[in-house]
Amino acid sequence: MSARDTQRVVLHRDQAEVEFSRIVAFSDGVFAIAITLLVLALEIPPDVDIGDALRDRGAEFFAYFLSFAVVGRFWMAHHRIFGSIARFDTNLVIVNLAYLAFIALVPFTSEVLGNYSDDSTGVAIYAANLTAVSLISWTMIRYSYTRGLMREEAEEFRVRFAGAGAFVVAGVFALSIPLAFLSPTLAMISWASLFVLGDRVVDRLTGVRKPT
Amino acid sequence: MSARDTQRVVLHRDQAEVEFSRIVAFSDGVFAIAITLLVLALEIPPDVDIGDALRDRGAEFFAYFLSFAVVGRFWMAHHRIFGSIARFDTNLVIVNLAYLAFIALVPFTSEVLGNYSDDSTGVAIYAANLTAVSLISWTMIRYSYTRGLMREEAEEFRVRFAGAGAFVVAGVFALSIPLAFLSPTLAMISWASLFVLGDRVVDRLTGVRKPT
Amino acid sequence: MSARDTQRVVLHRDQAEVEFSRIVAFSDGVFAIAITLLVLALEIPPDVDIGDALRDRGAEFFAYFLSFAVVGRFWMAHHRIFGSIARFDTNLVIVNLAYLAFIALVPFTSEVLGNYSDDSTGVAIYAANLTAVSLISWTMIRYSYTRGLMREEAEEFRVRFAGAGAFVVAGVFALSIPLAFLSPTLAMISWASLFVLGDRVVDRLTGVRKPT
Amino acid sequence: MSARDTQRVVLHRDQAEVEFSRIVAFSDGVFAIAITLLVLALEIPPDVDIGDALRDRGAEFFAYFLSFAVVGRFWMAHHRIFGSIARFDTNLVIVNLAYLAFIALVPFTSEVLGNYSDDSTGVAIYAANLTAVSLISWTMIRYSYTRGLMREEAEEFRVRFAGAGAFVVAGVFALSIPLAFLSPTLAMISWASLFVLGDRVVDRLTGVRKPT
Repeated sequence: MSARDTQRVVLHRDQAEVEFSRIVAFSDGVFAIAITLLVLALEIPPDVDIGDALRDRGAEFFAYFLSFAVVGRFWMAHHRIFGSIARFDTNLVIVNLAYLAFIALVPFTSEVLGNYSDDSTGVAIYAANLTAVSLISWTMIRYSYTRGLMREEAEEFRVRFAGAGAFVVAGVFALSIPLAFLSPTLAMISWASLFVLGDRVVDRLTGVRKPT
Repeated sequence: MSARDTQRVVLHRDQAEVEFSRIVAFSDGVFAIAITLLVLALEIPPDVDIGDALRDRGAEFFAYFLSFAVVGRFWMAHHRIFGSIARFDTNLVIVNLAYLAFIALVPFTSEVLGNYSDDSTGVAIYAANLTAVSLISWTMIRYSYTRGLMREEAEEFRVRFAGAGAFVVAGVFALSIPLAFLSPTLAMISWASLFVLGDRVVDRLTGVRKPT
Repeated sequence: MSARDTQRVVLHRDQAEVEFSRIVAFSDGVFAIAITLLVLALEIPPDVDIGDALRDRGAEFFAYFLSFAVVGRFWMAHHRIFGSIARFDTNLVIVNLAYLAFIALVPFTSEVLGNYSDDSTGVAIYAANLTAVSLISWTMIRYSYTRGLMREEAEEFRVRFAGAGAFVVAGVFALSIPLAFLSPTLAMISWASLFVLGDRVVDRLTGVRKPT
Repeated sequence: MSARDTQRVVLHRDQAEVEFSRIVAFSDGVFAIAITLLVLALEIPPDVDIGDALRDRGAEFFAYFLSFAVVGRFWMAHHRIFGSIARFDTNLVIVNLAYLAFIALVPFTSEVLGNYSDDSTGVAIYAANLTAVSLISWTMIRYSYTRGLMREEAEEFRVRFAGAGAFVVAGVFALSIPLAFLSPTLAMISWASLFVLGDRVVDRLTGVRKPT
């Protein structure tokens, strides 16, 4: 045991649980704030015809509810990941921060999507944001499995969550970036199909069913 | 026991409590943020007559305090619901997210109400938001009772919270949407009467008194 | 024991601790969000002379740090109050929500103070906000003592926190409202003296020293 | 034992743990909110060329990710500090609030940096903010060691965290203020080198390696 290892233990071992739950609570905080800030994209100035204003904002309401569902879904996944992690190291904390940086960016890209839903670039930037989130998520899971940070019970799902087949979510989001330049609508349909079919496809590809 | 059931158990059983409290904490976070964001609807530009500006904003202050009371009241109810729930499943998490999407929308509809309190559409959109919240809340309670997610002690209140009589809150909010087109003021009075009389009416209709 | 009392016990007794800590966590959330939203009052548009812009915003920076100190101080007091409370009832939850409604209002009145620090009305509205907070705080403490919600160890501080002498904080804030119309500066000085001398004056008036 | 000491004990001793975790949770809340509010600096108005708008905002995206990393890094350090603290007093709570006031200020100075990254004053104000945070952080650590608030296991790191060598982080940020007036770019490079080399330099200067 090197001096470094000893030091590493000193401040962590007996309080690891408190610190771990602080990381989880901090992540949940960022999720909760980001999801609630989505509403700030919706704004109606005073002294306009309110009926007209609401009708004009169809795409903004769509972006609000879509992003609420997307961030909510990522939160549930994050939930499951950190429920399966038993130990953590500094790298995991840093990767988790990078992950949160892109979650916290969603209120911005969602507002862009609401204002530019017919515009290829507007849709592509939203797709790029979700690609970054799912790519870092996949990296985080792989890293946790590789470094033995996962609970032992999670081992049987290794192929399901850290295998190549699990890359499909990030892959679809990534492909929807160029797709947005062909047709913004098609890109959005590809996200919707992820919601409906994503789990089933990954289950099939990896041969292991996602635990519910 | 199917393979599916086994998998379902693996990651949940021993950490259910941690995960459940994470869901509750996340919900509380969204409530706390949404209720605090209400203040962003209040704004006075620099370099105006501040006395006049304050007088002009009567309806905005009214909307702020009304919405603080409304969101606070929903938080207390959510509090009671989740205090009675013993188990949860993925569906409940999803319905709870849908519920939170409409709680997080209140800062927007409240700002609309403040700016358009004399306008039928402005009042109706606020009413529609509250209708959605109370409808999903009622669905969430019914679902929890039906699937056996509730604590056993909560059984005696089943009729009170999941019965048809409990629908009255969502019903009054729903009726206040068309009412707003007859008279915005009358719609607001119907909400106020819910605050004052709601519990008593539901107690009477269901024949069971709400626990305090 | 009436039927009502029995019902009151059912859902509360065995989970009171969880629910109580949820109330405290919710309050802390509102405090944390309100104190962090203060920064939104500070804004410098792009494409101006940044040095000039900063110099012009002296009053806004003053309002930011003053309000951070004020909300922080109220948080510490709230901290102490709820640390001394052993039980709670629905009324306390409602009064606490009213308290939080005025804490969450500070980002607005603080922005007004920053923009209108030379204006009697601007200073008076900030004073009115702090008066409301300290008045409700005092009511909340009195109520908790009267209804036996306090821990027994807190009894010896009853005179200190719930007595007439403890009213001095709310009283000084209240008096600073008319004072602002004589001189905005004098009103601010009265708040500063509360910070420096407040505790000592109340200690003297009530004959009991505040626990630290 | 003076009367004062007795009083000091009464409300704290048996609930210190709850109160301490409330302080930590409150700090985490402010960190999570401040880091998530960074996104509000990013805004693209409707009806512009979105591609052009994105290209023009390079500096704003840079400021967003830099500040996310900076606040995240400070959060990790705060994490470590409070993980090593065993006891607290009122002074520590107040210094911690002062610390948080400058953390909560980052969304403002970060927005300034994004809009004025070529401007010496714009860069200097960001540097001044980070100087304040790291200076107060260093003070907080020194205070905790001096007053015996630290866990005993933390004693061996006293030189590393509370010694003169640990001052180097605050020192580099402080020096980058005048440096910004020579060259804004050079000031930013000095921050980047802190990220990459900071820990190693302080390890060397103090002769004790930072625990990971």
